Amino acid sequence: MTAWETERVAWAYLSRVTQGPSRVVSDFVERYGVVEAVRAIKSGVVPRVVAERVSARAHIDTAAADLDAVAALGGRLVIPTDDEWPAWRLVGFQTGEFGGRADTSVPLALWVIGGRSLLDVTERAVAVVGTRAATAYGEHVAGEISGDMAVDGWTVVSGGAFGIDGVAHRAAMGVGGVTVAVLACGVDRAYPAGHARLLQQITSSGLVVSEYALGTTPAKHRFLARNRLVAAFGEGVVVVEAGWRSGARNTASWARSLGRPVVAVPGPVTSASSAGCHRMIRESEARLVSNARDVVEEIGSALSGDDEQDHLFSRGDDRITGPAILVLDALPGSGSLGPHEISELSGVPMSDVRAALVMLEMESLVVRDDTGWARAQRRR
Amino acid sequence: MTAWETERVAWAYLSRVTQGPSRVVSDFVERYGVVEAVRAIKSGVVPRVVAERVSARAHIDTAAADLDAVAALGGRLVIPTDDEWPAWRLVGFQTGEFGGRADTSVPLALWVIGGRSLLDVTERAVAVVGTRAATAYGEHVAGEISGDMAVDGWTVVSGGAFGIDGVAHRAAMGVGGVTVAVLACGVDRAYPAGHARLLQQITSSGLVVSEYALGTTPAKHRFLARNRLVAAFGEGVVVVEAGWRSGARNTASWARSLGRPVVAVPGPVTSASSAGCHRMIRESEARLVSNARDVVEEIGSALSGDDEQDHLFSRGDDRITGPAILVLDALPGSGSLGPHEISELSGVPMSDVRAALVMLEMESLVVRDDTGWARAQRRR
Repeated sequence: MTAWETERVAWAYLSRVTQGPSRVVSDFVERYGVVEAVRAIKSGVVPRVVAERVSARAHIDTAAADLDAVAALGGRLVIPTDDEWPAWRLVGFQTGEFGGRADTSVPLALWVIGGRSLLDVTERAVAVVGTRAATAYGEHVAGEISGDMAVDGWTVVSGGAFGIDGVAHRAAMGVGGVTVAVLACGVDRAYPAGHARLLQQITSSGLVVSEYALGTTPAKHRFLARNRLVAAFGEGVVVVEAGWRSGARNTASWARSLGRPVVAVPGPVTSASSAGCHRMIRESEARLVSNARDVVEEIGSALSGDDEQDHLFSRGDDRITGPAILVLDALPGSGSLGPHEISELSGVPMSDVRAALVMLEMESLVVRDDTGWARAQRRR
Repeated sequence: MTAWETERVAWAYLSRVTQGPSRVVSDFVERYGVVEAVRAIKSGVVPRVVAERVSARAHIDTAAADLDAVAALGGRLVIPTDDEWPAWRLVGFQTGEFGGRADTSVPLALWVIGGRSLLDVTERAVAVVGTRAATAYGEHVAGEISGDMAVDGWTVVSGGAFGIDGVAHRAAMGVGGVTVAVLACGVDRAYPAGHARLLQQITSSGLVVSEYALGTTPAKHRFLARNRLVAAFGEGVVVVEAGWRSGARNTASWARSLGRPVVAVPGPVTSASSAGCHRMIRESEARLVSNARDVVEEIGSALSGDDEQDHLFSRGDDRITGPAILVLDALPGSGSLGPHEISELSGVPMSDVRAALVMLEMESLVVRDDTGWARAQRRR
């Protein structure tokens, strides 16, 4: 077994025993490496906070079988050291303001079915979400916006649910576009069952993704955690129809915490299915959009915005790739660091750190001084 | 003929020869008094700018006949010295920022049909406007909002047009409420002709108002000037359905210049009749509202807002009546004035100025110092 295969088995084990995101497990892995962390968990010699999270399932070691099973489905487990790991999409979870919410960490690893690279499909992606109780109007508009975005080369990310989600996926595929469904259960489970065929179709041209091990059943807290990935994978979130208390508002809330723009489609004030959209617009949680052109305008303007969060999460330029974002993120607000420190903080190998710094310097995002590298002061 | 009757005849003459608002005519009248100003106009000895505005019609003196004719219709000419003159509603035209737009002055005088006091009915009023090309949805929502506002004691001000305007008037009357139609033609003209009966009905419980002399026909520039009065008479403007380029946006624009809140009702993005509302919400020209409760919330919060314009146009307290607003408005941003100077600047008689100052002092809006009275510095 190669080192990476060993790592992959370790992540598969961790994914099953942890069941979802866990800051303490992530921190533990970051400190000791995944292989050593798993060894410690299996031996039971771990800090109390880690034990509390994993001890109940620590004895379940189906990692090798899980990897075989996902391969049999045409899938794989994507781990943080893989090229397709969408690090720059997830970096916000380390730095965003989540107001003490639990489980805001990056996913440990991602179970994926579908032939495309997860990094590639989330490169230019938009989340389109909404109520399961969609009206004919909402389905029409969700289809128009998703189809137009997909034609324009945007991947449409959604949750695979009935209603708006389903329309968004179908509309993207309908125009030959790419779509990603992020599930709150194992990628081998069709949820909802009525969407088994749809999810199958998605894997043939896009991706079905989950952070939960095979066989995991959906649960309320998993939907909420799943929503954070839907928000993270997109450049912004489009809400098409949402009830007054809708899961779509949860997705929108994650997006805001990540510094991603949220937009909402209005509808008749007489329609309960638009009440959540109107509420978000009224309370300045979302900007009103009428069509795909408006969506692109909002998402585009966010990329060129000038506040600190935009700065952190926007790539600024297409030439700035994943590692460069991590390098930039590792630099403090003031003061400078040497490349070794940056490598240590960012987890990016030294060779990549140097390349990234050069690239960031060309983009005027970092400056060199006597003691190392610092963030460039932003134009105001 | 009493002095006031003489004045009223003079205003009636001015109204006909000026045809609409005119800053230069208003200034001329303010300087010389209306009777003297009219004498000068008739003799042709006036400044060039005034002559340019009035000389073409200066020979038309139908003032007495016009006053008889409006009386025969059950109406009257309301002039600035009348108790019912809504001075506090119009003061914004002297101080607002209109970006060089023409005809932003107060109306010279107002032709009114209906038994109620113009000051009373505009005391707690909201403008409800929208497209003539209303959909069934827009008519439904305009009816709901106008009816609910009227039940809550708000006068519904609109323009008497087909579509949203007509529904707004009817809904207010339908619940026994008060409504005001501001016309872009003489109050003796039914425009549109199809609303002759509606306008008649409005006069029986509310008011039909125009700054144009009897017989004046509607014209595009008169609609635009009329819109400023619709905006001025309300505490805020509600737009229910508006096309991409709609007269309702013009009314909304006047409202913003006057510091009045503008709100708009969304609708299906597939409806051209909602495109103007969506545009205004998207461009932050209007706040989204779904119902009368939202409208009251927005208009209420504007009254308690803390910027300078709110300060000028809000009454702060119900005990502050028309003259007090004029007195407050006459006080400079810094420095103080004596009561005589205030009376001269505000046009408010000395006895009323003293009463007003006491009232304003109680409301902590003015302070007394060695040399007179000054604006209280605002809490920040």
